[in-house]
Amino acid sequence: MFIAGEYDVIVIGSGHSGCEAALAAARMGCQTLLTTINLDNIAFMPCNPSVGGPAKGHLVRELDALGGQMGINADKTSLQMRMLNTGKGPAVHALRAQADKDLYHITMKETVENQPNLDVKQVLVERILAKDQKVYGIEVETGEMYYTKSIILATGTYLGGKIIIGELAYKGGPNGQRAAENLTSSLKELNIRIMRFKTGTPARVDKRSLDFSKMIEQPGDEEVHNFSFLSEITTRKQLPCWLTYTNEKTHEIIRNNLHRAPMYTGIVEGVGPRYCPSIESKIVRFADKNAHQLFIEPEGHHTNEMYVQGMSTSLPIDVQYEFLRTIAGMENVKIMRPGYAIDYDCIDSTQLKPTLEFKTVQGLFSAGQINGTSGYEEAAAQGLVAGINAALLVKGQEPLILSRSDGYIGVLIDDLVTKGTNEPYRIMTSRAEFRLILRQDNADLRLTEIGRKIGLVSDERYAKFVCKRDSIEESLKLLRSVMITPTPEIQAKMQAMGTVELRTGIMLYDLLRRTEINYNMISEHFDVPLLDSAVQQQVEISAKYEGYISKQLEQVERAARLDEKLLPKDIDYMQLSGLAVEAREKLNEIRPLSIGQAGRISGVSPADISILMIYMEQKRRRDEAIDLS
Amino acid sequence: MFIAGEYDVIVIGSGHSGCEAALAAARMGCQTLLTTINLDNIAFMPCNPSVGGPAKGHLVRELDALGGQMGINADKTSLQMRMLNTGKGPAVHALRAQADKDLYHITMKETVENQPNLDVKQVLVERILAKDQKVYGIEVETGEMYYTKSIILATGTYLGGKIIIGELAYKGGPNGQRAAENLTSSLKELNIRIMRFKTGTPARVDKRSLDFSKMIEQPGDEEVHNFSFLSEITTRKQLPCWLTYTNEKTHEIIRNNLHRAPMYTGIVEGVGPRYCPSIESKIVRFADKNAHQLFIEPEGHHTNEMYVQGMSTSLPIDVQYEFLRTIAGMENVKIMRPGYAIDYDCIDSTQLKPTLEFKTVQGLFSAGQINGTSGYEEAAAQGLVAGINAALLVKGQEPLILSRSDGYIGVLIDDLVTKGTNEPYRIMTSRAEFRLILRQDNADLRLTEIGRKIGLVSDERYAKFVCKRDSIEESLKLLRSVMITPTPEIQAKMQAMGTVELRTGIMLYDLLRRTEINYNMISEHFDVPLLDSAVQQQVEISAKYEGYISKQLEQVERAARLDEKLLPKDIDYMQLSGLAVEAREKLNEIRPLSIGQAGRISGVSPADISILMIYMEQKRRRDEAIDLS
Ligand SMILES: Cc1cc2nc3c(=O)[nH]c(=O)nc-3n(C[C@H](O)[C@H](O)[C@H](O)COP(=O)(O)OP(=O)(O)OC[C@H]3O[C@@H](n4cnc5c(N)ncnc54)[C@H](O)[C@@H]3O)c2cc1C
Ligand SMILES: Cc1cc2nc3c(=O)[nH]c(=O)nc-3n(C[C@H](O)[C@H](O)[C@H](O)COP(=O)(O)OP(=O)(O)OC[C@H]3O[C@@H](n4cnc5c(N)ncnc54)[C@H](O)[C@@H]3O)c2cc1C
Repeated sequence: MFIAGEYDVIVIGSGHSGCEAALAAARMGCQTLLTTINLDNIAFMPCNPSVGGPAKGHLVRELDALGGQMGINADKTSLQMRMLNTGKGPAVHALRAQADKDLYHITMKETVENQPNLDVKQVLVERILAKDQKVYGIEVETGEMYYTKSIILATGTYLGGKIIIGELAYKGGPNGQRAAENLTSSLKELNIRIMRFKTGTPARVDKRSLDFSKMIEQPGDEEVHNFSFLSEITTRKQLPCWLTYTNEKTHEIIRNNLHRAPMYTGIVEGVGPRYCPSIESKIVRFADKNAHQLFIEPEGHHTNEMYVQGMSTSLPIDVQYEFLRTIAGMENVKIMRPGYAIDYDCIDSTQLKPTLEFKTVQGLFSAGQINGTSGYEEAAAQGLVAGINAALLVKGQEPLILSRSDGYIGVLIDDLVTKGTNEPYRIMTSRAEFRLILRQDNADLRLTEIGRKIGLVSDERYAKFVCKRDSIEESLKLLRSVMITPTPEIQAKMQAMGTVELRTGIMLYDLLRRTEINYNMISEHFDVPLLDSAVQQQVEISAKYEGYISKQLEQVERAARLDEKLLPKDIDYMQLSGLAVEAREKLNEIRPLSIGQAGRISGVSPADISILMIYMEQKRRRDEAIDLS
Repeated sequence: MFIAGEYDVIVIGSGHSGCEAALAAARMGCQTLLTTINLDNIAFMPCNPSVGGPAKGHLVRELDALGGQMGINADKTSLQMRMLNTGKGPAVHALRAQADKDLYHITMKETVENQPNLDVKQVLVERILAKDQKVYGIEVETGEMYYTKSIILATGTYLGGKIIIGELAYKGGPNGQRAAENLTSSLKELNIRIMRFKTGTPARVDKRSLDFSKMIEQPGDEEVHNFSFLSEITTRKQLPCWLTYTNEKTHEIIRNNLHRAPMYTGIVEGVGPRYCPSIESKIVRFADKNAHQLFIEPEGHHTNEMYVQGMSTSLPIDVQYEFLRTIAGMENVKIMRPGYAIDYDCIDSTQLKPTLEFKTVQGLFSAGQINGTSGYEEAAAQGLVAGINAALLVKGQEPLILSRSDGYIGVLIDDLVTKGTNEPYRIMTSRAEFRLILRQDNADLRLTEIGRKIGLVSDERYAKFVCKRDSIEESLKLLRSVMITPTPEIQAKMQAMGTVELRTGIMLYDLLRRTEINYNMISEHFDVPLLDSAVQQQVEISAKYEGYISKQLEQVERAARLDEKLLPKDIDYMQLSGLAVEAREKLNEIRPLSIGQAGRISGVSPADISILMIYMEQKRRRDEAIDLS
């Protein structure tokens, strides 16, 4: 028996979740080991070369505010950025970047390799070592063991991975990597419930074989964006993406070949993603649609490989060629890598606490695609939370639980641990009930203080945040204190600004609430200073959306009160009379921390919640009585 | 049956040989397909991150002169260069570069992806399609077929690959890649003889865990070198390497663990490399040596991974840790990737013609590690020759055969096809009998004209070569035409130059032949122009080594005469009386093209050659007699 090292935290997997987990734990002072099946796949993007987008972009900004890495590295390595949905309200504005796939990997590898307290190793983990459901180490393929106080599973799609292309199927991880064949059985020995999901990716095609004159160019924004509140990148060499469409011909070919699709031939075991479905599922599910959007996206500055977004498939290669060639601009397409699907083992995420620790295995955490999610950003966000909580556990400190009103990260994790998922889960703005306050633009205001408290926010980041927060407050205070009155001089200014004249005296703040007025105009006509654009944006949103925001804050308040009503850990739901059978079983399985969480479990009705509330009230009285006696 | 494309040349494998092969064929105007198991391993360096060195550096320069790519890309991506052996004669000067592994791969991938006439595809080839021992296509794992006029095997160590680390063994290619499991049986169906070789690589270790103060720094040369005669790079950010040594303690640990070494436990089937042996073989074979040199080499600008040159091993990981930690500066070493060995299928190279085409399978060529060689440069050189000859075959033109006096490429290929090899073959200066004329500094003078003739040398390269060649000739002519006489003025110059005074009138050329005189001195004191340094170097070598060179040229002449004596293709050696049994068998197997080649076959004696010569003379007379009749 060879013990090759001892750590506080061991992270199994160095994808997007594993890297964030390891960086967080190491930065919090824990001796950390980051493992991977192959050092050359650290933070590799096996699917689309892109970071962000609706809700996902929010996750990246939140991650960044908490001291995560994805935003910084995406800023450094992206080859295009766009702010999406700018025609809609600020809640759904979303930053999306095209990544240079190789460069993103190289940069994250460099980051983790240079992180103090962090060792990076290529070892294939085969077994979790645990005693009495408490972890103490890992055993790897080459025979050595490492001792540890906590472990984070971040194995992505590698557990029992199976690759499928048409009639071909073989054991393997994504992108030609080795799969991990034995770890699942070690998890089963710990009584962890395993599920089987699948995901897929489209072909990569040769840029030289495309006719872009038949597609619509999608350039990056002229304005230079950054994910990270720390980044100060002001120029970026951008490459365009290209928009094209499927058509009836495409759909016909796919329909004619459905009998050869692995999902029908039965080769696929796993459940596929609803929100990133294969083209064959789209054709089946949206039979009446006669065109689907396709984005042709570059994979890097130094390659001709282009990603065909929207065309994920595991149909046989001849069918892939046939249907791609029906698409405008792709008539002579040459495939460089075929599309494929991957089937893999993941866990039932309701087995986890909101800290992402397993309820029944002490010191074992789980993050990323293994928890049934899909997406780099979802993975990274969970990785950060798991890394933080593993470190807090090791340090004997209180765990960090982000609520649904703290951010999308809270929504994501609460959904996973409370509702679970029976198909690959993806974050969406519609999942967040407090959308209006969970904006990508205010992630720093929401979360930097939390990140600072746990020790992940650097002085530089914190100073930047404090400065921004204080400027916003000062500016709002100033606007709320300056009254303007309907003097002729002021009325002339109103005219100049193209807004109706004043009837009474109002505060500048109220002036700003008018739709047609922005802060720059006010600053031009009145004695208030120009602001940094990020500050100005917050000031404007505060003023313009005040009504909605305060209403939402009230809802948050109400929800928080329910979340504060903690349920006793040892409560025996099976004995609690009055609960519906389903509620009883679900509550017993999920073991929610609070009334709030209990209410979000599907199958638990408001009536069940009332019974729980009554039970709690009775218990409180009983306990008080005991205390007094 | 789905035919996905038709090509003139298909290259199976995109390692160092496959890339050169495909580029050459495409540049010669052939529609070419370059295939790979994974696009992310194109021109990947699975072993040491370095290009060049003794004899290997010669290959790179020769490759470059012929229009190959390795030199240009190594120049662009290297992180250190040194000219080795500068203390010795110019024949063994050798340029060696440390490569940035990721960057080398990315750059070569970019090169092949942008080459006109060349398609690059990730497909795993499973079958060679042939009829009557003539190839016409390939079939790949995903089911599609490609038709072609010729095929180049360049599969490296992937055929039936098996990875071995101590007691662990599993099917796989190098660096965590998939192996090709089925292609070997397709080769066997074509009656190709397969052998099994092995090679190994050391652990990669974390730079941060090393104590460089206990090692000797090996910086790059201050002078900026380039492999390519085209490159004009004049600045390069260089990283140092580090020298350290094994010691008795190291050796003791290895000796104590030999019973766990795969080569003794029998897990390894293949024959390992004599000239790049594992540390365990070194300890056994050089039992009296009490220290071996180790070079610690950076793998890239953006990584902390360091390569431990000299420490290739497949011992179990605990032993790897134990012996590495005995080494000065490595006491606290952390392994990032373990050392491992790989067993793989290769072919008996005597089945090939000097064009690298199989004698018995028309249109099937073979290049690189599959031919039993080891080393990137050896692979690249063969790839170029196979690519050229496949293209020439398709175009119906005469093949290109480089002789042993044309260059190390000729030596390498002649060794392979004439002598064969029963262990991984490596090029060395000692293998070249015409070393003095096969210098790295004159590769362009030797080969550019040949490259031009076959259409691989661009106008730019050719113009540069012509200019250099003409300058050398002019300069030599000038030096040979200017006579200096023992006038007092001249004698004073002799004194100033620190050389003995003249006794008679001599040519400047003869003055240059004096050891203590260099061209710059002559140019300073007499009316001859200063020269470009590369030209000057040639002029000096021509003068100073004239005697040796002309002697060697005579030998070349003699050898060439034997190589010109072509043996009839249909000669039946088994019937040829007088030949020794071994010679008869060998000749029948190798089927040499000429008396020269026959003489280099091991087992064919001078007596056998005499018999062959007599037979040829008799045949000539007979044929003449028939002609006259
Ligand atoms: C084919 C494919 C298609 C996809 N399509 C989409 C899509 O359309 N939309 C979308 O949002 N997302 C998609 N994804 C998902 C996205 O790639 C993942 O969600 C994201 O990469 C998950 O990150 P992760 O950190 O959880 O795991 P990964 O990025 O997969 O990383 C897993 C890591 O774990 C390591 N590992 C695994 N097992 C072991 C072990 N036993 N020992 C040591 N190391 C181990 C691996 O080496 C790797 O480093 C797709 C993924 C694949 C493979
Ligand atoms: C572990 C290890 C240690 C080594 N140690 C040394 C050393 O110490 N010294 C030294 O000089 N050299 C060493 N080498 C050898 C050196 O790496 C090779 O000589 C060189 O890379 C060979 O180049 P190649 O082009 O022949 O093959 P490779 O570089 O191996 O490339 C082979 C290519 O073929 C492709 N391929 C294979 N089969 C198929 C198929 N069926 N279909 C499609 N594509 C296919 C692969 O994807 C790959 O692109 C080592 C190699 C390994 C793996």
